[in-house]
Amino acid sequence: MKVVALAGGVGGAKMVLGLAQILRPQDLTVIVNTADDFEHLGLHISPDLDSVCYALAGIASRETGWGRSAETWNTLSELGRLGGPVWFHLGDRDLATHLERTRRLTSGEPLSKIVRAFCRAWGIKHTVLPMTDSPVRTFVCTQEGDLEFQTYFVMRRCRPRVRSFEFRGAEHATPAPGVMDAIESADGVVICPSNPWVSIGPILSMPGVRHAIKMRKTVAVTPIISGKAIRGPAAKMYRELGIRPSAVAVAKHYHDLAWGFVLDQVDAPLEAQIRQLGMRTRLAKTLMRTKGDRLRLAKDVLDFLGTEQR
Amino acid sequence: MKVVALAGGVGGAKMVLGLAQILRPQDLTVIVNTADDFEHLGLHISPDLDSVCYALAGIASRETGWGRSAETWNTLSELGRLGGPVWFHLGDRDLATHLERTRRLTSGEPLSKIVRAFCRAWGIKHTVLPMTDSPVRTFVCTQEGDLEFQTYFVMRRCRPRVRSFEFRGAEHATPAPGVMDAIESADGVVICPSNPWVSIGPILSMPGVRHAIKMRKTVAVTPIISGKAIRGPAAKMYRELGIRPSAVAVAKHYHDLAWGFVLDQVDAPLEAQIRQLGMRTRLAKTLMRTKGDRLRLAKDVLDFLGTEQR
Repeated sequence: MKVVALAGGVGGAKMVLGLAQILRPQDLTVIVNTADDFEHLGLHISPDLDSVCYALAGIASRETGWGRSAETWNTLSELGRLGGPVWFHLGDRDLATHLERTRRLTSGEPLSKIVRAFCRAWGIKHTVLPMTDSPVRTFVCTQEGDLEFQTYFVMRRCRPRVRSFEFRGAEHATPAPGVMDAIESADGVVICPSNPWVSIGPILSMPGVRHAIKMRKTVAVTPIISGKAIRGPAAKMYRELGIRPSAVAVAKHYHDLAWGFVLDQVDAPLEAQIRQLGMRTRLAKTLMRTKGDRLRLAKDVLDFLGTEQR
Repeated sequence: MKVVALAGGVGGAKMVLGLAQILRPQDLTVIVNTADDFEHLGLHISPDLDSVCYALAGIASRETGWGRSAETWNTLSELGRLGGPVWFHLGDRDLATHLERTRRLTSGEPLSKIVRAFCRAWGIKHTVLPMTDSPVRTFVCTQEGDLEFQTYFVMRRCRPRVRSFEFRGAEHATPAPGVMDAIESADGVVICPSNPWVSIGPILSMPGVRHAIKMRKTVAVTPIISGKAIRGPAAKMYRELGIRPSAVAVAKHYHDLAWGFVLDQVDAPLEAQIRQLGMRTRLAKTLMRTKGDRLRLAKDVLDFLGTEQR
């Protein structure tokens, strides 16, 4: 079964890692959000791509959920001593990724080609694609003004109240080479338990992508359990936009797009409501704490995708 | 006694460190070569400024003669894994200097102001000035073409045969704020035992600087002992330009500029020749291996500058 996974950062990386343990390299393509990429210290940083790649390469930090394992922080500590900006935590190993990516981008290489080279260097066999090579940037529109995503997320710690989102540049962007082909030839699409607003939203905003995904058998996995986001600001965003955060809210996000919805077994009482949206449902343990959790969830999702006809 | 020291990298840094142990902060201004600055991985690197500042701050590596003490190399090793350029060795701590300098330059701050801020952060009390805030770049003209200095020095390991030097941008450059004032109000100028061609040459090429130094009591310290450079390609450069490398050759470099010349005691037989050039001479132990060596040489140089009238 050929599968395409749409992924943001941490939650996406975990799901993808589970899928990669089951699917052969030629059968899994991961399309990753790049709208929270940003420029910092002159470097082009791609947080979601790095989270997914570090996870697949087995070099991700197990403690933080972002960054590298066996990381050191000497550059950052000296940067602080010089009065430089230290609000975005850059480890010494991680820095190499940003330096080399920036060097290649500056020399004219497209991001998708750079990701391919990095995956080869890191021994990643499955295909990882940025959603686009075009510059698309998420702005979080808040009562304090329009904030670039990392400013909102890291510097302001998601505190400003959200009014809306803008994916600037999306309308003129082109999906990266391979993205449309992968979706169109997939037997199924998995929307990972990433933030629907700021991780999956930008991918779906790529011209042609939403329609292509609609044409496939698509399963979305909830990032909200018992009304709470497993990680990050998804639940807070729903609330500030006047929507009660729940698996139902996420299902509504995707119901015109996805055939099926995976909700957590603790949310079983919500299953009927989600079915009323016209979606098939599957109850699963969606919280991925251990390697075993990831693998079991990936199996459940693939089973759900594979066993029932559209 | 108010002293100005002209310095390049390693040899300059050692001499400066000796002088700083004797002279009060308000009595020593170091003017540092910036013509071997270069862009690498999108970073603005100032090797000579960093060598001098790291030495004065007590954070210089004792083993290498460049870079930081307690250094780690995780960025560089990961950069190599990604196929990035690793010919220029950047340590993790050192990287912070380049990142923050580049960030400030990009935001429009002049190099001299950045150096001042860094010196404050590193606890350096004496004054360190870049020779200029203007872009001046040393090109080594060789039989393999005109090479940017770091390409010649680090990547090509000084192998190409030298024909001449160019300090591109020098004619339109302005000495950095404070440079002319420091020279004009100095009781004496010390030309450190740095490479006369590529470390001191660029400083002297700054409009007005050579003349201002001529007007002061200036002492040059030889970087050549027994016909050999203590470090680096100075002797090789003299040979390739058809000049026998010796303290006499260095003295000829500076005789229209300097009142006095410090040569190594092992070169005592050359003293008469140098006097014939019209220079006063002083024999000293010019090889600085230990802290004691640096201090003694600095004392000798200051004594030479101070005890004899011009």
